Amino acid sequence: MPKTSPGRFFEDFSLGDTLRHATPRTVTHGDVALYTALYGPRFAVQSSDAFARAIGYPHSPVDDFLVFHIVFGKTVPDVSLNAVANLGYAGCRFLAPVYPGDTLSTVSEVIGLKENSNGKTGVVYVRSIGVNQNGTQVLDYVRWVMVRKRVESARAPGELVPALPKALEPAELGDACPVIDPQAYDTGLSGQRHRLRDYVAGEMIDHVDGTTVEEAEHMMATRLYQNTAKVHFNQFTEGQGRFGRRLIYGGHVISIARALSFNGLANAFHIAAINGGRHVAPLFAGNTVFAWSEILDVQDLPGRDDVGALRVRTIATKDRPCGDFPRRTGEDYDPSVILDLDYWALIPR
Amino acid sequence: MPKTSPGRFFEDFSLGDTLRHATPRTVTHGDVALYTALYGPRFAVQSSDAFARAIGYPHSPVDDFLVFHIVFGKTVPDVSLNAVANLGYAGCRFLAPVYPGDTLSTVSEVIGLKENSNGKTGVVYVRSIGVNQNGTQVLDYVRWVMVRKRVESARAPGELVPALPKALEPAELGDACPVIDPQAYDTGLSGQRHRLRDYVAGEMIDHVDGTTVEEAEHMMATRLYQNTAKVHFNQFTEGQGRFGRRLIYGGHVISIARALSFNGLANAFHIAAINGGRHVAPLFAGNTVFAWSEILDVQDLPGRDDVGALRVRTIATKDRPCGDFPRRTGEDYDPSVILDLDYWALIPR
Amino acid sequence: MPKTSPGRFFEDFSLGDTLRHATPRTVTHGDVALYTALYGPRFAVQSSDAFARAIGYPHSPVDDFLVFHIVFGKTVPDVSLNAVANLGYAGCRFLAPVYPGDTLSTVSEVIGLKENSNGKTGVVYVRSIGVNQNGTQVLDYVRWVMVRKRVESARAPGELVPALPKALEPAELGDACPVIDPQAYDTGLSGQRHRLRDYVAGEMIDHVDGTTVEEAEHMMATRLYQNTAKVHFNQFTEGQGRFGRRLIYGGHVISIARALSFNGLANAFHIAAINGGRHVAPLFAGNTVFAWSEILDVQDLPGRDDVGALRVRTIATKDRPCGDFPRRTGEDYDPSVILDLDYWALIPR
Repeated sequence: MPKTSPGRFFEDFSLGDTLRHATPRTVTHGDVALYTALYGPRFAVQSSDAFARAIGYPHSPVDDFLVFHIVFGKTVPDVSLNAVANLGYAGCRFLAPVYPGDTLSTVSEVIGLKENSNGKTGVVYVRSIGVNQNGTQVLDYVRWVMVRKRVESARAPGELVPALPKALEPAELGDACPVIDPQAYDTGLSGQRHRLRDYVAGEMIDHVDGTTVEEAEHMMATRLYQNTAKVHFNQFTEGQGRFGRRLIYGGHVISIARALSFNGLANAFHIAAINGGRHVAPLFAGNTVFAWSEILDVQDLPGRDDVGALRVRTIATKDRPCGDFPRRTGEDYDPSVILDLDYWALIPR
Repeated sequence: MPKTSPGRFFEDFSLGDTLRHATPRTVTHGDVALYTALYGPRFAVQSSDAFARAIGYPHSPVDDFLVFHIVFGKTVPDVSLNAVANLGYAGCRFLAPVYPGDTLSTVSEVIGLKENSNGKTGVVYVRSIGVNQNGTQVLDYVRWVMVRKRVESARAPGELVPALPKALEPAELGDACPVIDPQAYDTGLSGQRHRLRDYVAGEMIDHVDGTTVEEAEHMMATRLYQNTAKVHFNQFTEGQGRFGRRLIYGGHVISIARALSFNGLANAFHIAAINGGRHVAPLFAGNTVFAWSEILDVQDLPGRDDVGALRVRTIATKDRPCGDFPRRTGEDYDPSVILDLDYWALIPR
Repeated sequence: MPKTSPGRFFEDFSLGDTLRHATPRTVTHGDVALYTALYGPRFAVQSSDAFARAIGYPHSPVDDFLVFHIVFGKTVPDVSLNAVANLGYAGCRFLAPVYPGDTLSTVSEVIGLKENSNGKTGVVYVRSIGVNQNGTQVLDYVRWVMVRKRVESARAPGELVPALPKALEPAELGDACPVIDPQAYDTGLSGQRHRLRDYVAGEMIDHVDGTTVEEAEHMMATRLYQNTAKVHFNQFTEGQGRFGRRLIYGGHVISIARALSFNGLANAFHIAAINGGRHVAPLFAGNTVFAWSEILDVQDLPGRDDVGALRVRTIATKDRPCGDFPRRTGEDYDPSVILDLDYWALIPR
């Protein structure tokens, strides 16, 4: 009876399966400092207890993407150890703030399965929920991945492609953001003076700066999230693989792009939801990441007059500045594009 | 009168000498987060305050090897700055749990000396004890190192080879582990369902995964432990030396192997003792580390029905997966082997 | 109306301007651990709560240079984004201890302006003050930078070269150091037995050790300080620039030199003031840093019999050990020199 887990293959999943993931994880000020060192975010609410308190938080909450990566990381050994590709995200909502000292764990449900026509792989849809030590849900999202079959002749374990929302509605946003005092939100200290209504749909913002990625950085980040996907860590094996390189965790790219977006979106302090995201191409150590954003929508939140929501599409590239907004034309992306992320961020009114 | 210390040479040690080492060190959640980022351990007791509390800890203790490295690091400026080689460890016992906020310091006693026949070097045996801010002993171990003489003609400062235990006895284990509630230990959350009696002596476990090491990582780790051994940090000098490279601190290899061993030993949550260890060959940045373990023994602890002990031999290799368990044959190790570590780990019954 | 800031150009500054900088930052144990991992400092007061308490601190204060880098980092987006060179520092005093949990922010005043004769650039003098969450000043310093003009024909915005002190006076030192109990300061634990009067002016100390710098390390450090200067992060752009490499933040060199100086200055536990500093040449990843110090002065502090002050000049080099004290001869520095720093450090009497 082997003591090590080879991970699930496509035929090992069943619709409705509930997966309780290891390992629960207490988030601390140490994690927050590492997140700062790895990405350099400067959003005032997450950076300063004093700033956070002034607007109504008890103290600084943990960065939303740090929460996402920790909740996500736990699903890897059970869901995607034998994945060929991470295909997409949908319906991702942040439901409660997370503070240093909170303990996060993750439970997933298999909500969809679809064998591919080649008979060698299938798509698995899981809905994952992150909860804190009190059982409060902090994050809820769906992702789907392409997973290899162990045995090609194995029967497909079911077939259901779940209906997934293209985007969250404004009424579904804001649970993880306490009511804040927008007057106390000091735009003289936050790095930029623009509030909700200073943005308009269609606006495009080049985030200007670029940041080069190192092997030590992405591996430290990915281990911090206790994400065990082999392709990020093992040069011996990956050196003989398709790219000859370690692949960088897609979430690392998301956090880099988010940190770069401060320059232009400094007051969009809270990620309320991720509508969808696509890792268009892989990133490798030595590449330099740039990003730009388009404002897709500007919305009030029903019943709230403190904050509103910007729907933002952030595109990240490698080794190509974004002054001319490289993007998708028809079905094809500019070859520099590595990430196309669609999310809602909250910003003071 | 020089202000800098050149470190002790062989003739500077005397039997019975007591060395109070600098620098005392408060361990924090920051150190714990860095340890996670550097190695990616996933043992639930150390990762989750909620999990630790459920079984009887006040909250998560600090990883045992982080404690070991900090206690060890302090001895380097006084013991091994002029060491040619770190020859071995024996009788290492963890005596009390360490929690964030505790301050560690180390005192060593010279318990053995033996000049080598070449007259240029000698072996120094020191027993080092780590204590916390209350004077409670947290760690006790012996190591022996080969140290250069300053002057070849200097008389040997004494000669005594201490008797050292080949291994600790089960009755000597467990002081650093409070009595836990094994029913509350949730193997659905810890990553694996196997408990003490699911293991049998002779069992061999390939830990499957590999992790590539970077210069920035091992130097950050070694500085975190305030270990000042020059060979780890100075490429200018090492580039002209025997290997042309910086050598990686042996303890870094131990921590990597321990983190890899989670896949197969997920519930062996506490290192109670190190019976012995050998750094068979050096590790360099760019190498990929793999590991496998043999269960040497499975023992109850006298008077305890909550946890038992696995005696484990973990072998780590570089640039060679461990599916066929590379090991020592006669006197010779497989050329890939870098570490051969023999320890007791506690695991719920 | 662009949402991103291009940074100020020379003609955008005015004498007397007050700049409130983003982003306020709570310093935590996580930052302290990262600082230890990045530089390996071993000063007992900052390393051990127990040691700090024994001499009169409530617990360990944050390393002075970590405070400096965080306060400094905030000024970059507003002052030096378009800087050609960081020319100097003067009159830098540490005014209150900083503890984990404190929130730092920075305000600067433009105190000097001088157009260069080429008409393309000018020198901007700013006095920056770091304050904590209670409004207490923790740091006060002047720096001057050469900044590009946006439009060459723009009129100089003013002309005033402020009078700056060559060095602080002993009477101006010590505000950030509580009265300590020098008898309780245990030189058996601190790593060295020398106190104030064991040093004499003119004494030169080679700090012996060298440390090689990696890209991941200096970028993590600089992001930890939320310093956004582009030259440190963007290999895509810098690869096409003057050096073909990312430049390392000068403060990173200062912190490396300070950590190296422990070997010889172990009890000089607090930086009270920086008289001036010059980044003589750039440092790049792969270089190995060495350092030596000259004791310029040994002074009592008026009204204090617990600590005195050493005026220290620390010179750091790259790829050259400092056993023969490489330095400036006439106007020319030894080509290995990268830093020439003049500061006051406090040490027990």
